[in-house]
Amino acid sequence: MGQPNQTIGHLYLEDLRVGQQFTSGSYLMETGRIKEFAAEFDPQPFHLDESAAETSVFRGLAASGWHTAAATMRLLLTGGLPLADGIIGVGGEIAWPRPTRPGDTLRVESEILEITPSRSKPNQGFVTVRSTTLNQDQEAVYIFTAKVLVFRRASH
Amino acid sequence: MGQPNQTIGHLYLEDLRVGQQFTSGSYLMETGRIKEFAAEFDPQPFHLDESAAETSVFRGLAASGWHTAAATMRLLLTGGLPLADGIIGVGGEIAWPRPTRPGDTLRVESEILEITPSRSKPNQGFVTVRSTTLNQDQEAVYIFTAKVLVFRRASH
Repeated sequence: MGQPNQTIGHLYLEDLRVGQQFTSGSYLMETGRIKEFAAEFDPQPFHLDESAAETSVFRGLAASGWHTAAATMRLLLTGGLPLADGIIGVGGEIAWPRPTRPGDTLRVESEILEITPSRSKPNQGFVTVRSTTLNQDQEAVYIFTAKVLVFRRASH
Repeated sequence: MGQPNQTIGHLYLEDLRVGQQFTSGSYLMETGRIKEFAAEFDPQPFHLDESAAETSVFRGLAASGWHTAAATMRLLLTGGLPLADGIIGVGGEIAWPRPTRPGDTLRVESEILEITPSRSKPNQGFVTVRSTTLNQDQEAVYIFTAKVLVFRRASH
């Protein structure tokens, strides 16, 4: 599980600024967990079996993109994006520019791209955050540009 | 696990047409699995604990959006999108218009939106597929508009 920095988030809507950046802890993608996750949710040969994966488009075992996405969420919640009320995403864009491999150590770098206060609900707003998940060679394996619901401190 | 229709996919690039539609089998979102998935990947109170969830923005326990996304992938692979070479997504857009609840039975309806043959690699192309995951009340809980790599029959 890497070093899950179990920081409780502290940032409210009024603490965020466009351009603000955050870096997560790290997360190890273990071979056994890659295969288990794939068997449950993404049972394709290139996620399950080394020899089948060798002759696939991935040319070697690759984690399910949804496993990478889920690991990224864990990294965001354990210090990578320290929002006080948690990370409540309504959607966004995702991309997997390159496979995640067994033994990869992932971390996430996030940047606030846009902040849109709600017109109808003064205590909340939507924040666009781009989170790039990198492997140990600083290669991007996953990019999630999320629209996240964030509350003001005053709403508590 | 619902009725995972373990159909092996049979469709190649030349078998797909814009407007073509597919329907998956069903998948039960069990309370225990919702909490386990959240504990591993999305440890937020509204995914883990009923009473904490009652006072949250979700007003009751909700599955992690990534759990819904992963369950959708399983439904696509077990008959919901019967591509011969599997489902190799490079990215796309996602939205969670409404929470998935414990006990929900999900199914996925997919439609081919766009087919773009590769210019440089004649044996493959990119296909845009919109997959809408519905609960038992026919409400959309997740929409994934994916860009998927699909091969021609001739490439085998």
